[in-house]
Amino acid sequence: MRLKLQVAYEGSAFCGWQSQAGGGTVQDALEAAFAKLVGHRVVVHGAGRTDSGVHAIGQIAHADVPCQRLAPASWAGALNATLPREMRVLASSQARRDFHARFDAAGKTYCYQIWNHRFQNPLERTHSWHVASPLNRPLLQTLAGSLEGTHDFAAFAANRGSPEKSTVRTLYRVRLSCRGPMVRLTFVGNGFLYRMVRLLTGSLVRVAQGKKDAAWLQELLQQPTGRKTSFCAPAEGLFLQKVHYRTPFSARANTPPPDPQNPGGLPTM
Amino acid sequence: MRLKLQVAYEGSAFCGWQSQAGGGTVQDALEAAFAKLVGHRVVVHGAGRTDSGVHAIGQIAHADVPCQRLAPASWAGALNATLPREMRVLASSQARRDFHARFDAAGKTYCYQIWNHRFQNPLERTHSWHVASPLNRPLLQTLAGSLEGTHDFAAFAANRGSPEKSTVRTLYRVRLSCRGPMVRLTFVGNGFLYRMVRLLTGSLVRVAQGKKDAAWLQELLQQPTGRKTSFCAPAEGLFLQKVHYRTPFSARANTPPPDPQNPGGLPTM
Repeated sequence: MRLKLQVAYEGSAFCGWQSQAGGGTVQDALEAAFAKLVGHRVVVHGAGRTDSGVHAIGQIAHADVPCQRLAPASWAGALNATLPREMRVLASSQARRDFHARFDAAGKTYCYQIWNHRFQNPLERTHSWHVASPLNRPLLQTLAGSLEGTHDFAAFAANRGSPEKSTVRTLYRVRLSCRGPMVRLTFVGNGFLYRMVRLLTGSLVRVAQGKKDAAWLQELLQQPTGRKTSFCAPAEGLFLQKVHYRTPFSARANTPPPDPQNPGGLPTM
Repeated sequence: MRLKLQVAYEGSAFCGWQSQAGGGTVQDALEAAFAKLVGHRVVVHGAGRTDSGVHAIGQIAHADVPCQRLAPASWAGALNATLPREMRVLASSQARRDFHARFDAAGKTYCYQIWNHRFQNPLERTHSWHVASPLNRPLLQTLAGSLEGTHDFAAFAANRGSPEKSTVRTLYRVRLSCRGPMVRLTFVGNGFLYRMVRLLTGSLVRVAQGKKDAAWLQELLQQPTGRKTSFCAPAEGLFLQKVHYRTPFSARANTPPPDPQNPGGLPTM
């Protein structure tokens, strides 16, 4: 039986999603929990390979498990009984036999939190990027809006082992919301290059601080060939909020997903 | 010079506000930071003596410091340079010579967070009470509203060394707000008895779970003599959000404070 899992984790407690020799990743912890339950290795495939320090509330994963063991919805509780407390499977359900958490994903929503105040907020220390210097918020809003649409985001991609085939992606929505000193950027897109959200956020902040001008950002976006930004926002502000599997994305580009946003809440599977 | 400080702290890192022989409290940490700066003990008075595990974003404190040392606004940064990272002085300013953080407080705003889902949210583990069983939210809303007004809250007070002279308090506003599984209760009142917010929240939740009936809660509220609730919500869900110093409270009871609420954001001093 193919199982679909919704996974939440505190990024500061793990060395990222993807399994590695030394262990300590989210995938390692999940596979260890499965192995305890079924007695053999179960490979877990995640929708997004989040980096070390990046959080998730709506990570989606799939895994193949023996049918007769447990009812699909019962796997969440069984896994949680042995998982470290910094992560939880919030829901489990049976998926189609050919469902793939990563390849079937039609889009994702990421959220990036910035604490914009002279002093760090000790309550949000591991959940936000502390930016002490003032940000031009109206400009930040304009810049965020300018990212929406289909662009070649090559200038906002870090190098990973294997190069991406295409660096063109569509951002359906980039929204700024502020609550006192907390500044939150939400990105909804059909796909994200490696470190794209952190490189976009780092570059936007640089302009909103007045350290780079808006034309520099627009050049990176409009004429990316040979250009790269080096301003990468730190991992601790980034949250994988939701993975979208419905496919209104492909039908009409630039159309936001049809389900009402549920910011901060629990994404539905 | 009398200094007024706004202090934020992650409650899980401290043994509460009030200084104790073994140290490890917020007051101890602040007084140690002052002693490093001025070379002698400076007594710090807080508006609310939060318990171990209780968080604060808008705790207010006062202390007397030598005038010539630093400009009033510069004390925050100087203190933060030696404070543990789990706490920060978010602002410092000069206060009237007779200002008293605790005795001058006209009211306080507390917030209590409940994560109401089958499984804990690992990202809110130290910032919420995990209640797994379903809560009747419309009932919770009604119950919260019934607490507003002036009541004898004796049934919702834990015993502390010295008994309170009067157990009558006014709650100007008790609000429920929900965002997916996160349930948040906000209490604005002219004063709070020892553990009052946690005992009110614990009792409300008990009724909203269907384990006690609403009449039981109303009896505790209307005829408190000889009655006590024992349902105390845990410390980790509680936040001291703001201390109010303006005095519209005394003029017209039941009138909410005039400043627009700034939920989750940074309270103004």
